[in-house]
Amino acid sequence: MSNQLRIGLLGLGRIGKLHAANIAAFADKAVVAAAADPLADGDIARFADGLGISDLSKDPYDVINNPDVDALFICSSTATHAEFIIAGAKAGKHIFCEKPIHTDPAKIREALDTVKECGVKLQVGFVRRFDHNHKKVRDVVASGRLGAPHTVKVTSRDPDIAPLSYLETSGGIFMDMTIHDFDMVRYLVGSEATEVTAYGSVLINPEIKAFGDADTVVVAMKFENGALGVIDNSRRAPYGYDQRTEVLCEKGCVRAENDLNDTATISTVEGVEAAKPTWFFLERYNQAFIDETLAFTDAVLNDKDTPVTGEDGLQPVYMALAAEKSMREGRPVKLSEVKGETE
Amino acid sequence: MSNQLRIGLLGLGRIGKLHAANIAAFADKAVVAAAADPLADGDIARFADGLGISDLSKDPYDVINNPDVDALFICSSTATHAEFIIAGAKAGKHIFCEKPIHTDPAKIREALDTVKECGVKLQVGFVRRFDHNHKKVRDVVASGRLGAPHTVKVTSRDPDIAPLSYLETSGGIFMDMTIHDFDMVRYLVGSEATEVTAYGSVLINPEIKAFGDADTVVVAMKFENGALGVIDNSRRAPYGYDQRTEVLCEKGCVRAENDLNDTATISTVEGVEAAKPTWFFLERYNQAFIDETLAFTDAVLNDKDTPVTGEDGLQPVYMALAAEKSMREGRPVKLSEVKGETE
Amino acid sequence: MSNQLRIGLLGLGRIGKLHAANIAAFADKAVVAAAADPLADGDIARFADGLGISDLSKDPYDVINNPDVDALFICSSTATHAEFIIAGAKAGKHIFCEKPIHTDPAKIREALDTVKECGVKLQVGFVRRFDHNHKKVRDVVASGRLGAPHTVKVTSRDPDIAPLSYLETSGGIFMDMTIHDFDMVRYLVGSEATEVTAYGSVLINPEIKAFGDADTVVVAMKFENGALGVIDNSRRAPYGYDQRTEVLCEKGCVRAENDLNDTATISTVEGVEAAKPTWFFLERYNQAFIDETLAFTDAVLNDKDTPVTGEDGLQPVYMALAAEKSMREGRPVKLSEVKGETE
Amino acid sequence: MSNQLRIGLLGLGRIGKLHAANIAAFADKAVVAAAADPLADGDIARFADGLGISDLSKDPYDVINNPDVDALFICSSTATHAEFIIAGAKAGKHIFCEKPIHTDPAKIREALDTVKECGVKLQVGFVRRFDHNHKKVRDVVASGRLGAPHTVKVTSRDPDIAPLSYLETSGGIFMDMTIHDFDMVRYLVGSEATEVTAYGSVLINPEIKAFGDADTVVVAMKFENGALGVIDNSRRAPYGYDQRTEVLCEKGCVRAENDLNDTATISTVEGVEAAKPTWFFLERYNQAFIDETLAFTDAVLNDKDTPVTGEDGLQPVYMALAAEKSMREGRPVKLSEVKGETE
Repeated sequence: MSNQLRIGLLGLGRIGKLHAANIAAFADKAVVAAAADPLADGDIARFADGLGISDLSKDPYDVINNPDVDALFICSSTATHAEFIIAGAKAGKHIFCEKPIHTDPAKIREALDTVKECGVKLQVGFVRRFDHNHKKVRDVVASGRLGAPHTVKVTSRDPDIAPLSYLETSGGIFMDMTIHDFDMVRYLVGSEATEVTAYGSVLINPEIKAFGDADTVVVAMKFENGALGVIDNSRRAPYGYDQRTEVLCEKGCVRAENDLNDTATISTVEGVEAAKPTWFFLERYNQAFIDETLAFTDAVLNDKDTPVTGEDGLQPVYMALAAEKSMREGRPVKLSEVKGETE
Repeated sequence: MSNQLRIGLLGLGRIGKLHAANIAAFADKAVVAAAADPLADGDIARFADGLGISDLSKDPYDVINNPDVDALFICSSTATHAEFIIAGAKAGKHIFCEKPIHTDPAKIREALDTVKECGVKLQVGFVRRFDHNHKKVRDVVASGRLGAPHTVKVTSRDPDIAPLSYLETSGGIFMDMTIHDFDMVRYLVGSEATEVTAYGSVLINPEIKAFGDADTVVVAMKFENGALGVIDNSRRAPYGYDQRTEVLCEKGCVRAENDLNDTATISTVEGVEAAKPTWFFLERYNQAFIDETLAFTDAVLNDKDTPVTGEDGLQPVYMALAAEKSMREGRPVKLSEVKGETE
Repeated sequence: MSNQLRIGLLGLGRIGKLHAANIAAFADKAVVAAAADPLADGDIARFADGLGISDLSKDPYDVINNPDVDALFICSSTATHAEFIIAGAKAGKHIFCEKPIHTDPAKIREALDTVKECGVKLQVGFVRRFDHNHKKVRDVVASGRLGAPHTVKVTSRDPDIAPLSYLETSGGIFMDMTIHDFDMVRYLVGSEATEVTAYGSVLINPEIKAFGDADTVVVAMKFENGALGVIDNSRRAPYGYDQRTEVLCEKGCVRAENDLNDTATISTVEGVEAAKPTWFFLERYNQAFIDETLAFTDAVLNDKDTPVTGEDGLQPVYMALAAEKSMREGRPVKLSEVKGETE
Repeated sequence: MSNQLRIGLLGLGRIGKLHAANIAAFADKAVVAAAADPLADGDIARFADGLGISDLSKDPYDVINNPDVDALFICSSTATHAEFIIAGAKAGKHIFCEKPIHTDPAKIREALDTVKECGVKLQVGFVRRFDHNHKKVRDVVASGRLGAPHTVKVTSRDPDIAPLSYLETSGGIFMDMTIHDFDMVRYLVGSEATEVTAYGSVLINPEIKAFGDADTVVVAMKFENGALGVIDNSRRAPYGYDQRTEVLCEKGCVRAENDLNDTATISTVEGVEAAKPTWFFLERYNQAFIDETLAFTDAVLNDKDTPVTGEDGLQPVYMALAAEKSMREGRPVKLSEVKGETE
């Protein structure tokens, strides 16, 4: 490989475009050499052209099999991730794949096995690990200066609920939304969950009851190392994207607050006003999206481990399945139960 | 009754002394007319003398039956609360009783029934309801301006674990410590819990495993109104008493942070330092202890409802029993199950 | 002297009452043995009676000459302070005197000389030195861990402008209001000012132009040790009492923010709301008023230096006179100039 | 002009490179068509090549007279700014010029007159106006919702003092550093200063005494609208770049704090640690540098007024001259005095 990574991008939807733009603007050592999208006309073609991506196809296999491509960014629909990972690995490409790899652990395992056999690198797009705030929490815990973790808390709320059409095919709140938080608790605590209990309510959009989903959930959990955890999610926090993490350890506690739009406060006789959190994930995780791209480029070019592995892509799926089962059956679900069923 | 409330105080331990001193210093309309403590010599006698309490006995019934006493402050050991409530009510005294009334709901019910029959007022010492921060959270929720509550979160951690001798007879972490938080979630959400799931770990003092207690717990719960809740407790937060509350509602979120020792920050090349939370409950709830006393005095003198009723004393005990059962049996426990067993 | 300090209180206006109540409630080792006020009837008599002050007179000399009194609290009108200090010192009483001792440095010097000759202790009521926030700033600077102070900043704003009748006889904003901040900068920096420049505007109540006062001022200054300083005052900050201090030092910066009414924040689609600062000096400096009383009691009973000396009472008066002169004459005024004129 | 702005960049030092990179990455409607730098070899040539700038010269007039260039970015040394503005304006180019235009108001006036005659647009690089925090303060004041401004405060401190070689030719702290803050107070208050008084000390590097400069200054000032102001500067705040603004108005106060590296806090028995401010101006004003570029592009392409005018470039120079004179002569200096001398 040359000293520049040649990337083939699969899928030019919102996230694909974001990665393409970030690579163009910020990744000195990477370039988007080719891209594919089933709708590779009109807007998408103009977007690719604007970034100087000359090799644009409607067929993903044009990119996967392109000898001029070193690595794939898989930003296509979730259902295609595992297939493209397998094909890409077999074609000798390193792979960055958006989360989740699949909702079926067996399919994920198959993809991970192929990646391993083919000796390529894989990074999963759990972008929040690159957020400056969460990363600081994790770094403090991982440094050991606070001793063993005792309790981890993650608050994760979207600014507004997605349209019903999206929610209906989202895979449910645990697989669609909490999966980021399942990754986060693992990342922060450095241990695997052994059991989860999930409570869910429909408090925002009653129509989602029709397909058995919830819009407000609380998940309690235990970890192998004895730590306890809790995640609270809401599909709608009207004040903005609420993303906070906290780990209580033996010798102290580390917490991260939201980023705010600005630091100004306005004090009047009515009270004190401050800015709201940055609106949504594109604002809050703007730099993190850039940084995960740089980290992947660095891992491939310098033959390092990727900072989010295939295993990191698999474990949160087990947690989501266990949480879903817990909510539906009204009982705690051990991770071993879910792993046994599906492996 | 005159326009001054004449109080008889049962128990001059730490909390009894605190109430006595607060009444003396801050309650213009109340006076400690009599007190009893089994150890009413030496230090306790000097303390009483210093406050001008001339009528001091070793026998609580001297106070309970004292015709010169309008109301009792029951600050004796937990095991005696229900008995003294019943005796006091029968003697026509209004009653302020420290929490919990009893650990057996049947005994509490008997006491509450007697209070009702005798037509006296009863206030339970859930002092945190009077904290300026938690109260603000509750007032905002109760005002309805944020719409229905969706998720309630309570973090409650002691600065250090109590001695083993204390823990051994404490009734367990749920009855001894979480009970305040069970009261708090009811207070904040304005609804009754229907089910709880509790996880507990022993991460601070391994010796408590001997009597089946935990020192680190997470409790998830559902409420009648659909809201979800979570409490996290630790017997030791080395940075101080950590008492935070939060309610996410339909139209917004209200959160309270800790009070700090001071507002100063020190910025150096090493970083920015700020003050820790106030050390423990006597510092944090200093004003709240005064205010609950004033509220009780006001309720009795002006024939208002007390702000923390006998029912408020009973419900958290059910929650503690359910949490204990959930942790021991590894399953969610409905409140109805606990109520059915014990009523 | 016995192990209890017997205090004679001169003046039972707002501040006199506050001190009397604090001594009664919080000073175990002090008691108000006698008090005098020209209006010692009605409300004042009832107030004294409620605190158990049996010896109440209309003549201050009844208290000053009372052999049963160890120390005086001078809370009468400013014009009487120096006279009462002199008389009290000659009568062998230790003295706590409200600020300022006088607006004429010569009169202050005379009082201080008498105090010195008579060998009694004197503490001046610069209560803000006892505030937990400002004290933390000062302690950090005084500890030397941040090296030499370079810049000191004090923001001090009242929540609302006083009535014209008060302002007219207040001695002007520098002597009435900034004097506290002149004390504060000396306390924080640990050095004497050598020169001040003051700018003033009338932006709140145009009627004060009639007597040459300002309601909004900025004072810049230099200190002997090379540090620079700035004070900004306003007679009206509609959001409440704004009291902040900051010292930039060689190795870092220490800053204190306001105390707030509570720590709750409310996040909605409109923004984030927080509590205002505590309303005015009785709320903000509530504990500081208690602590200065305890410090005085301790200094007298245990023969220590008082924490705010007579010299501390004099220097801010020079600074106020220099600031006044600077504003009126439109030029920097050296402290030596003011001291030369008046000594 | 086409719908894309063709920019000629003069000077590819640190700021020139920053603008070039920002235009390339973020300005969809602008492109760097040509550049000039006296050292246009080696690193600079590689930099230009990396951004696709093919037209690179050592002679600025190659760019100024390039018919293919619509607008100039003047990022060369200060001494050349006025000359290039005049030449550029005569060549019909719109101009973005780094601050200050010149240290001699007469030269600035000549440049502004030429700009006016030639009918081109001019924007001066006071980048802090585009900072999200300061801009919020200004927008709140300018909205009028808080009424008239009474007091403006600006704290502006560099993380570390520049090398002596830089300081010696910097023009002095007022012209080099405070000039940004002079622009800021004008921006925030919306009025012109009428008089300033400056105090300066040498507390960081004693060697600067040799050329009469100061490293720690406080500047107090009055505005036409009656408002008062204060700026405090330090060449070294070891904890990082300290940039705070505050305006007290008739009906309230608006303040902006620093941006921090992250929002995490670490609480231990030793205290609470938080992140420091972002290190220096490239970090703190990163987005602001982008936004001023976009604003200039928008102003030119859509024929709007630029948000920082030539007059905005001139007034702070007067203020810097007056402050310098005040510090040297130990007296307040009216702006009219400085304007009279030099116009």
